[in-house]
Amino acid sequence: MEYIKIPMDIEKRSFEIIGEELGEHSFNERELSIVKRVIHTTADFQYKDLLYIRENAIDEALKLLKSGITIYTDTKMALSGINKKALSNLNCNVECFVDREDVAQIAKERGITRSMAAVEKAVEEGVEFFVFGNAPTALYRLKELIEEGKANAKFIIGAPIGFVGAAESKEEAEKLPLPMITIRGRKGGSTVAAAIVNALMYLIVNRG
Amino acid sequence: MEYIKIPMDIEKRSFEIIGEELGEHSFNERELSIVKRVIHTTADFQYKDLLYIRENAIDEALKLLKSGITIYTDTKMALSGINKKALSNLNCNVECFVDREDVAQIAKERGITRSMAAVEKAVEEGVEFFVFGNAPTALYRLKELIEEGKANAKFIIGAPIGFVGAAESKEEAEKLPLPMITIRGRKGGSTVAAAIVNALMYLIVNRG
Repeated sequence: MEYIKIPMDIEKRSFEIIGEELGEHSFNERELSIVKRVIHTTADFQYKDLLYIRENAIDEALKLLKSGITIYTDTKMALSGINKKALSNLNCNVECFVDREDVAQIAKERGITRSMAAVEKAVEEGVEFFVFGNAPTALYRLKELIEEGKANAKFIIGAPIGFVGAAESKEEAEKLPLPMITIRGRKGGSTVAAAIVNALMYLIVNRG
Repeated sequence: MEYIKIPMDIEKRSFEIIGEELGEHSFNERELSIVKRVIHTTADFQYKDLLYIRENAIDEALKLLKSGITIYTDTKMALSGINKKALSNLNCNVECFVDREDVAQIAKERGITRSMAAVEKAVEEGVEFFVFGNAPTALYRLKELIEEGKANAKFIIGAPIGFVGAAESKEEAEKLPLPMITIRGRKGGSTVAAAIVNALMYLIVNRG
């Protein structure tokens, strides 16, 4: 059988097709690279209308990524989807706090969910770059901690997905005066969250 | 802030909402549990029309899962998304061959992609249950190996996603007279592939 076997050729051609089918838009070049990567990940052009990129968000995200940071993710799937070579080239790393023993312990002691305890732990350890692809409760908890003056969040990707609380959690998050990229409505998810992180990194470093 | 904080309550309510909004369909109860879980994972009702479940597919998948097998996945993200407790309750395990050292070696020696080498290795080791959430090339390669009489595949989840080769790879796979579940067209992905595996497992064991 004849089929394209080189992954980079497939990706290049995919982005060309997405460009051809995207239709009219008002994204600038950097924004467009994020939109296209999210569509590439989901094969869903609706994301063109769901993606919200706050004005200063890309600048702030790139500044943080260039400074070599720890990125919080709410799920192992989002963590898996983030390009580790690009991350390493930036001297950044990513952690999914929810799997840590100390987080499980806090959740148990305080009778809260592990995803909420994970946010608290990340905040306690000074994380500034937050990526949510699944858990509305975690995003709500971060908002509370920011409003209580306890969290030093400088950039948020808000992409919880689902039918209960996801859309609302993102609406609430957008009330924060912080640099952020969100997916409005019910859609989003860990692959989308990871795609946004990757698109941001590829604005600075090669895919690796 | 008031929000539902218990993950199982969120999931239960989500499935109710999906049921309410799904509209008319001709799925039986077991099929419906798969459809609903895929929509739960994507917040995308289009999957109702894209999901193809071959007549004997669920029976065969459950028979394999009950016999304690190794599941092949083409990506770490699909692997991450599969419920490890349910898997362990079934004495099954999951492996993403693409990250193995020997697979990287084969790919290098033979000048093929790692995803193709990974399928060959899985086939060589007698894997019977294949899950594709990303790589059309891997699904094509499995089809070739089956047609050459080299692969003992007994069940396939075909959910490669994307704009180049994904839809075609699934059309080709459907020509095989094997039990399979596919996502037609461009959509699919690792979260969808994992959701189908989980839905199948939950037909036998609790979420754990």
